[in-house]
Amino acid sequence: MTEQVKKLRINYKTLEEFKKFKEYGAQELSMLEDLQDNIIEDDLDSPFYGIYFGDQLAARMSLYKRDARFDQYFDPPQDYLELWKLEVLPDFRGRGYGTKLVEYAKSYNMPIKTNPRLNSRTFFEMMGFQAVKYDVERDLGENPLVWFPAGVSEQKLSQEDS
Amino acid sequence: MTEQVKKLRINYKTLEEFKKFKEYGAQELSMLEDLQDNIIEDDLDSPFYGIYFGDQLAARMSLYKRDARFDQYFDPPQDYLELWKLEVLPDFRGRGYGTKLVEYAKSYNMPIKTNPRLNSRTFFEMMGFQAVKYDVERDLGENPLVWFPAGVSEQKLSQEDS
Repeated sequence: MTEQVKKLRINYKTLEEFKKFKEYGAQELSMLEDLQDNIIEDDLDSPFYGIYFGDQLAARMSLYKRDARFDQYFDPPQDYLELWKLEVLPDFRGRGYGTKLVEYAKSYNMPIKTNPRLNSRTFFEMMGFQAVKYDVERDLGENPLVWFPAGVSEQKLSQEDS
Repeated sequence: MTEQVKKLRINYKTLEEFKKFKEYGAQELSMLEDLQDNIIEDDLDSPFYGIYFGDQLAARMSLYKRDARFDQYFDPPQDYLELWKLEVLPDFRGRGYGTKLVEYAKSYNMPIKTNPRLNSRTFFEMMGFQAVKYDVERDLGENPLVWFPAGVSEQKLSQEDS
């Protein structure tokens, strides 16, 4: 297998490929507008990572580092990664691309938080993600799952059992 | 039409009805656990509002007041409502229940923010909601839309045009 995770560069080709993904929305439209208005350069870094099969984008996710001062999930508060829009195009499923993207996120060795679509919850649980106690003020319509690198305190999580 | 919007009370019957809705997740599971563990009383208020057809729950939404200190959408920062999980069961569509729920939310005369599923975006736009400029740090995977009561400053929104 030669398909590797790559940080995606924003250009018209990438933005055209993004339209094939189900979770296309405000984020992609904003990048397109910024490119059209010359607010961002062509080929600028993005918070998207993807796997190409040949020259086709087959899978992607968005990954963004959140500062400890925004942390409401880990104890003590710390920098963590927020992962969203993990998606593998239908023709490329069953090849481990989703796993490869999540393993890539884990390789930063930081806690990860995600708000999976209901049908991908089991996948994330198999990848070692755990539910946190729902808190309406923090979570609203989210279904948060978190992952801890080895050695990170799970104090906040274990409060659930007390 | 006698169907009116009601604040939903949490009991086993309501929680059983919630299972019919597509967006069933951490929020509902948490209410079920709290009820089972006697952490909340039977028939306690919830952030859910719904419309019954006879004794069946036909539509629902969640609505929660956010304090101005969490406001990142309106200028000046102010208390606002966050609306999520607006959903009408398939058998009850086309009767204006979705509109009735949103009109109910508007009746508080506070700004409203929502993160609609992509297929309900047009509905919200027809209800007078507008897109805000996407901000990755704030919005991550969201597709935020906002609504302003008459008289509320649209300063932040109009910055988009500048």
